[in-house]
Amino acid sequence: MRFALYQPPQAEHRPCPVLYFLAGLTCTEETAAIKAGAQRLAAELGLILVMPDTSPRDTGFDGATGDWEFGEGAGFYVDATEAPWSARFRMHSYVVDELPALIAANFPADTSRSGICGHSMGGHGALTIALKHPERYRSVSAFAPIVAPSQVPWGRKALPRYLGETPEAWADYDACELVRRQTFPGTILIDQGEADNFLEAQLKPELFDQACAEAGQPLLLRRHAGYDHSYWFISSFIDDHLRHHAETLV
Amino acid sequence: MRFALYQPPQAEHRPCPVLYFLAGLTCTEETAAIKAGAQRLAAELGLILVMPDTSPRDTGFDGATGDWEFGEGAGFYVDATEAPWSARFRMHSYVVDELPALIAANFPADTSRSGICGHSMGGHGALTIALKHPERYRSVSAFAPIVAPSQVPWGRKALPRYLGETPEAWADYDACELVRRQTFPGTILIDQGEADNFLEAQLKPELFDQACAEAGQPLLLRRHAGYDHSYWFISSFIDDHLRHHAETLV
Repeated sequence: MRFALYQPPQAEHRPCPVLYFLAGLTCTEETAAIKAGAQRLAAELGLILVMPDTSPRDTGFDGATGDWEFGEGAGFYVDATEAPWSARFRMHSYVVDELPALIAANFPADTSRSGICGHSMGGHGALTIALKHPERYRSVSAFAPIVAPSQVPWGRKALPRYLGETPEAWADYDACELVRRQTFPGTILIDQGEADNFLEAQLKPELFDQACAEAGQPLLLRRHAGYDHSYWFISSFIDDHLRHHAETLV
Repeated sequence: MRFALYQPPQAEHRPCPVLYFLAGLTCTEETAAIKAGAQRLAAELGLILVMPDTSPRDTGFDGATGDWEFGEGAGFYVDATEAPWSARFRMHSYVVDELPALIAANFPADTSRSGICGHSMGGHGALTIALKHPERYRSVSAFAPIVAPSQVPWGRKALPRYLGETPEAWADYDACELVRRQTFPGTILIDQGEADNFLEAQLKPELFDQACAEAGQPLLLRRHAGYDHSYWFISSFIDDHLRHHAETLV
């Protein structure tokens, strides 16, 4: 597995908090590092940025490549239970356990102060991981996240292949379902562009808005006219997300 | 020819000044737009950013592709005089005449307030263009520029093929030679990383430092320990360059 890491100058003097950024479909560990423009403010705030790849690579599994919505580059941050994926596609455990242990062992990080953020499929990853492990993350935010994968084409295509045909298994990686079970102790920040091509069919932030309202989960959902699904959208609002995390972490 | 353009919100209300960014070897019109991180501060300062491609494309000329140091992606911002290049490789005229006319005709730009900046081969472009046309550019800066192409391998390889074997023709696109003929009416800002792999063989900023001193050209040459030739270097200091230009343009 590969990941990108930005270490701020403050880390030369003291352990720094960690913000994980989970990328979306087709992305690698380089995408956010190059396109999100997060380093400038991370350098001021003293945040370590960790940007993992979106799946294992070169698995050789039949069907692992050639479809941008499934397999390599499309791990959906689940621990697959179906063969052959279960042998390698364990992105949930990787992000929650293996990667933080690597960071703690090799960088001047205070991993007791960790936040998690993501875009699109990575926003789904950030929300589900934070909602499943609120003891490990103090802050969470997302750009244009998939909030209800059990109900939208991207999730309906990928989750059965990773997790089997049981809807209960999908619900365990569905932010709208998870927030009804256990809220996150802090406000969730979500930014969504209104000119996002995937808004109506795949993202449906109104479902999460409703689920949070019903569960009593504080949510700041901001809708931005004219912004699409791209990293231009992310780079326009990344500073607000870093400040959101820094309020809790720094 | 392709170019990228960033239009700041101020342009909805009034014509805005223009900053040209010329990219280096192998780059396209997308490189600085994606990697330099200039848009954030340009939005605050009200600067239109124009980022042209580094050469014509799909020329079909024998030898135009396959060598990253010459031909497509390596136009060196000259008007070629040698066949076949002279038919298409006229980047100097493109940047100085054709592109500004396009910008003036199609965007809310005040092209009487223009500055020029560039990286590596594009730094060479910015310096030579500003020194040859001080009436058209009010400000100039460069990241890790080639300042003496007549004396270094990149230039000694490309200039004879574009301009013929006459050293006088090379001198007309050599910042160290040009500044001795005519100084620029303002301080030239140059940032250079000291961990730049091309520093000693290709860049040699000390030659321009000496030429400026002898010519009476104000130069602010900053050397930064640990920084390489990449866009990480550029994104670290791009704000200083935008402010340098805005001091004169805005």
